[in-house]
Amino acid sequence: MLILHYAPNTISIAVLIALEEAGAAYRPVRLDFAAAEQRGDGYLKINPKGRVPALVTGRGILTETPAILFYIAQTYPAARLAPLDDPFAVAKIQSFNSYLCSTVHPSHSMRMRGARWSDDPAVIEALKVKVAANVAACFSLIESDLFEGPWVMGETYSIADAYLYPLTQWLGADGVALEDFPKIADHHRRMNQRLAVHAALQVERSA
Amino acid sequence: MLILHYAPNTISIAVLIALEEAGAAYRPVRLDFAAAEQRGDGYLKINPKGRVPALVTGRGILTETPAILFYIAQTYPAARLAPLDDPFAVAKIQSFNSYLCSTVHPSHSMRMRGARWSDDPAVIEALKVKVAANVAACFSLIESDLFEGPWVMGETYSIADAYLYPLTQWLGADGVALEDFPKIADHHRRMNQRLAVHAALQVERSA
Repeated sequence: MLILHYAPNTISIAVLIALEEAGAAYRPVRLDFAAAEQRGDGYLKINPKGRVPALVTGRGILTETPAILFYIAQTYPAARLAPLDDPFAVAKIQSFNSYLCSTVHPSHSMRMRGARWSDDPAVIEALKVKVAANVAACFSLIESDLFEGPWVMGETYSIADAYLYPLTQWLGADGVALEDFPKIADHHRRMNQRLAVHAALQVERSA
Repeated sequence: MLILHYAPNTISIAVLIALEEAGAAYRPVRLDFAAAEQRGDGYLKINPKGRVPALVTGRGILTETPAILFYIAQTYPAARLAPLDDPFAVAKIQSFNSYLCSTVHPSHSMRMRGARWSDDPAVIEALKVKVAANVAACFSLIESDLFEGPWVMGETYSIADAYLYPLTQWLGADGVALEDFPKIADHHRRMNQRLAVHAALQVERSA
């Protein structure tokens, strides 16, 4: 059985959602970031990066959200979480998910993870200044150029929707108004109605 | 025919290498970053992110290096640039490439692209301080945990090798000694002997 190492209120909810959409059998293992469990010796043997998510499979351990999401889509094809027979459509999904991991998530992370980039408390504080503007610019691009609607990739729900969900959820705390992006706001409301999202949030709260 | 929008001395060399490895027919179009062509109206219609690479295909335009690399691997299967019939092996490649785009490349970028994260010249300058340590930490993890050898994924060359190449090339300017990472140093020497790398560098210099 798959084992997912996750932490509440992190990007790992995207993988929980995808596992629930896939109907996968998996065991969730919760990490307590407040206790820095992700940097403990035990977890570093699972994921030396000290981050979540990490998915333990029968073949080995996978890290990095875009890779895990596509792995779930490939290994649970009946769930139709990616258009596996269409390389261009797959590339569009991978492009969207790469943008989230390389630009959108880092823009958000400057608010709480500035210590990655400086040891100077004043610089760490200064990195919070542009968070709202940078995250808003990312979501403006998603709203105007990348989001097909009604789902990220158009008519068909995919792993891109699961990945967008937490980043949208964090907009308020990032100082960005969700309602400035009507298509994404509507998407977020519909995501919150999906059974898989309910189940993933339930796992996050209870495990 | 494919069209690749690229700029010299950027991550787009990874895609040039993959296109050359694939034997793809493509037309390279050079952008002059010194003249800020990537933020000109013409290019923003191609890639509203104002970045390279962007690959124009018969179906539409693809952006984001990991997505373009996997697209090339999928559409030129004879080149065997990814183990397309093995979802776990594909996920390992995608995990490696996601790490490069979400953590390694941003760590490098703090040296020259700090203006993305602050408008304060003192903060932009301060963000250069940890570049060498952060990039070295990434390469230490690659050397010890991610790199299988002799190629990134083991016995078989893949798109992960093409993507690692430029980030390794930049180590010296980032203040990191390549020879501190013997496996990656050996990899870089062997990359520099590949005909596709020679061809990609030739395109970059001459187009």
